[in-house]
Amino acid sequence: MVSAIVEGIGALAAGEWAPLNRTGDLEGAKLTDSVVRLPDGFAGAYGDYVEQGWNTIAAPADFGGQGLPFALATCVLENLGTANMAFTLLPILSVGAVEALFHHGSDAQKAKYLPKLISGAWSGTMNLTEPQAGSDVGALRTTATPIEEGEHAGKYRINGSKIFITWGEHELAENIIHLVLARLPGAPEGSRGISLFVVPKYHVNDDGSLGARNDLRCVSLEHKLGINASPTCVMSFGEGAGTGGECIGELVGAENRGLMAMFTMMNNARINVGSQGVQIAERATQQAVAYAKERVQSPRAGAADKSPVAIIEHPDVRRMLVRMKALTEGARALLYYTAGQVDRGTLSDADAAMRAEVLVPLLKAWGTDIGCEVASIGVQVHGGMGFIEETGAAQHYRDARIAPIYEGTNGIQAADLVTRKLGMDGGGAVERLLQDIAHDGAEESNLAALAQDCIAIGQWMRDTASLDDRLAGSVPYTTMCAVAVAGWQLLRQARAVADGAAPSLAKVKPVTVRYFIDHIVPEAMGLKAAATAGAALFYAIDSEALAG
Amino acid sequence: MVSAIVEGIGALAAGEWAPLNRTGDLEGAKLTDSVVRLPDGFAGAYGDYVEQGWNTIAAPADFGGQGLPFALATCVLENLGTANMAFTLLPILSVGAVEALFHHGSDAQKAKYLPKLISGAWSGTMNLTEPQAGSDVGALRTTATPIEEGEHAGKYRINGSKIFITWGEHELAENIIHLVLARLPGAPEGSRGISLFVVPKYHVNDDGSLGARNDLRCVSLEHKLGINASPTCVMSFGEGAGTGGECIGELVGAENRGLMAMFTMMNNARINVGSQGVQIAERATQQAVAYAKERVQSPRAGAADKSPVAIIEHPDVRRMLVRMKALTEGARALLYYTAGQVDRGTLSDADAAMRAEVLVPLLKAWGTDIGCEVASIGVQVHGGMGFIEETGAAQHYRDARIAPIYEGTNGIQAADLVTRKLGMDGGGAVERLLQDIAHDGAEESNLAALAQDCIAIGQWMRDTASLDDRLAGSVPYTTMCAVAVAGWQLLRQARAVADGAAPSLAKVKPVTVRYFIDHIVPEAMGLKAAATAGAALFYAIDSEALAG
Repeated sequence: MVSAIVEGIGALAAGEWAPLNRTGDLEGAKLTDSVVRLPDGFAGAYGDYVEQGWNTIAAPADFGGQGLPFALATCVLENLGTANMAFTLLPILSVGAVEALFHHGSDAQKAKYLPKLISGAWSGTMNLTEPQAGSDVGALRTTATPIEEGEHAGKYRINGSKIFITWGEHELAENIIHLVLARLPGAPEGSRGISLFVVPKYHVNDDGSLGARNDLRCVSLEHKLGINASPTCVMSFGEGAGTGGECIGELVGAENRGLMAMFTMMNNARINVGSQGVQIAERATQQAVAYAKERVQSPRAGAADKSPVAIIEHPDVRRMLVRMKALTEGARALLYYTAGQVDRGTLSDADAAMRAEVLVPLLKAWGTDIGCEVASIGVQVHGGMGFIEETGAAQHYRDARIAPIYEGTNGIQAADLVTRKLGMDGGGAVERLLQDIAHDGAEESNLAALAQDCIAIGQWMRDTASLDDRLAGSVPYTTMCAVAVAGWQLLRQARAVADGAAPSLAKVKPVTVRYFIDHIVPEAMGLKAAATAGAALFYAIDSEALAG
Repeated sequence: MVSAIVEGIGALAAGEWAPLNRTGDLEGAKLTDSVVRLPDGFAGAYGDYVEQGWNTIAAPADFGGQGLPFALATCVLENLGTANMAFTLLPILSVGAVEALFHHGSDAQKAKYLPKLISGAWSGTMNLTEPQAGSDVGALRTTATPIEEGEHAGKYRINGSKIFITWGEHELAENIIHLVLARLPGAPEGSRGISLFVVPKYHVNDDGSLGARNDLRCVSLEHKLGINASPTCVMSFGEGAGTGGECIGELVGAENRGLMAMFTMMNNARINVGSQGVQIAERATQQAVAYAKERVQSPRAGAADKSPVAIIEHPDVRRMLVRMKALTEGARALLYYTAGQVDRGTLSDADAAMRAEVLVPLLKAWGTDIGCEVASIGVQVHGGMGFIEETGAAQHYRDARIAPIYEGTNGIQAADLVTRKLGMDGGGAVERLLQDIAHDGAEESNLAALAQDCIAIGQWMRDTASLDDRLAGSVPYTTMCAVAVAGWQLLRQARAVADGAAPSLAKVKPVTVRYFIDHIVPEAMGLKAAATAGAALFYAIDSEALAG
């Protein structure tokens, strides 16, 4: 069944979603009279995705899902995102909405919203950000006012604006289920006064049919560096925009506990954004290798034969391609290790659940960093053609750049690692992971040394360093830990291949793993000084002098 | 006088060229009926540049130049390029044409072309690339046929197409002087059969007035990732496009020695492209610091006061800003050290001339690499706003990406270092530079260790490594050497500031230099494994397996 799923999604991704990647970039999403339209082909490609049941893979069986492992759903999204990163944000957001409602919604809400969100007939969104509330979600000002009587008694009037709402408006799905963070009257300030609301584009009647249009709309789209087929909306809720006059939402979970619910959604989304790094890296690599095999330029240096050769034969081009492959495979190994721990956690393995929480910031931050690096090398392999938009390499470079920013910037991920995650189980959650690497990778001195460095830095951060010192070293430390985990998982892959697993990888896997351990691991060790240098230097000048 | 020049060009750059950066990106260069037009404002801004004499700084006094140091001309271009990278390619190309004609042209050619190229009334271009001849210039096919009799006897008929010709067509200057590489009948194959021709857009009469239009034209413009205000032209020479029927050029220098002449031009251009890395880094840094001072988000972690602060106060944002500044200052230090060695070389200091040749690939490769890195950090500092085109940070990220590609890809620069430059003076040219660093930086153990590593790797490359091994490690080795030189020059700056020079830098310089030596130098040391690993791994699989 697994191979049927992998082949099936591969066919849809390559056959229908990939050809829309360039047109989606060129034409982009367009807003006319509050309606967002996508280029020709998107509606049909989304329809086939829904009809073939791809949205249901890991969703709960009680609501029409197939209840299969998260790792398998990860594979589905990886394939789609490699074909079309901007388009795949649509199902990514829906999956997040399913997670939040499944874990925090009432039985009535689940019955009302989950089946169609899970089938893909409806899509979901995540409405956190406001102009003054980005990384600091607690600063948001959108309000929710209880409705005492009438048709909507027990529900809430939502008022406010949200920005950066991915796929906040479109017509590919019959309805859009917005999950919106807002404040109740008299709620505490900051993140402890935030509640979660479900706010549908069209009201849903008790029989499941669609009712009136809710008073919410997309008021503008952002002009972005990339992912142009993904509409990034400014959303207006309850601004009386002639669509009923009132924006009505239902409370999800307890009052003032919205951030917890949103974290459920964000954790899932962070894994999927880490996966986007893998996706764009994979696509960039495939394109660069294909070009390097075709492009003939210069004889091989030092060869007697002075005929020009395909550039894949030149040492530095090979270095670039092997690097692209090794980074991509490393991030993918980290991705599926994380997804596997999530699945084990779902099956009540508490250690695995805890490990998944440690892995998420590593995957999100480093996975998206290497997405950008690999896309950039992809441009370089193409030489001058890489800078020409028609070639496509430049689009990957542009698209990739969002992933280190959204779903919590990589700086936020690193802060999560060195504060919350490093504190889990008295430091044991992080340290056990690194001990496993040091032990299992003992025969690889570079890898074991990196793991030992990470252990020592983690202990210093927990026991000695100030909070400023920890944060000042958080980003390089995150990279070091991620490389250690990825290298470890690659080592396990190489061993499995050496033992006869996946014969088709017998040639390439030993090379990419060797490159990772001999080249990328030492680079990560070069970050040790930065991880442990502390914050004093950064505060040795004031802001004015820094700006001078 | 120096400070008058610096202030004067700063005023022109900030006042006239910088405001055109965004409109140049949005509107770009447009081709209509073989004529390239720039957005409003470009003609006036170029006119003021010419009128104020900025094009003449370092040009030879015999032809209207001021004969001032190259380092001062570098400062002029750095200011202009920080304001508007795409626009500044126009004077950069003209300066290269002046260099080539001054060193290789006949007296008559110098008299005819140099005064107006030097004033800026005319601009210059560099026509090397053809679709099949990129990094391998020797593969070009454009032909030059001697004209035996008639009006143009002694000249040549040029036929062929060139691509990626920067500022190949425009109307900001009265004439465009194209320097074109082409093959004479019966010329040897490859790079030893290439000759250089001067091919004006308008013929120049003996009295200096403009004659008929030459038969050359821009047939299309590329759609690029960035530098949209710089027209990247496909040029057609002698294709009978109704502008006289024949494209006429004059031979510059000796037959079949065109590549040598072109190298004169390229050496200069490579320094100026390395400078572009500094320029875009500087602009991105200024913008990021300004944003970080304004943008208020989240309280300071661990502080008793829970009011949100400007993000410049957060440790990881400070880390990003200090890193941006340190990389920018390091690359700028390398730039001016290189320019200084060029000036000393011009004054007959042979050692300095040789050192300049060693420094050029370091500056071009690493300077442009950090241009991309700093521009990318600049996007990150802006968070979600960084991905929105209106913010401007994304333009720098797009613009920066061309610099590692053109004027010889950074892979070509690294190959130049580990073959030609490493062989100069029996290895002494590179080694003496590194010994100077090890000696002068002895009190900084990181820097001295990096210099020693570079010495040892250089010796291994010269004495032991195969050509493939050298090339396989060339890019990481180039980075290591560049960081060593930049760190050394920064150290000298820090010492000078400590001794009382430039009091305005007394606060910031010690911090950026400390960051460079304590953070960036160790990262470069992490590349040692990659520099010395050799090529065997990259050839352990064949091209097909690599593509699999």
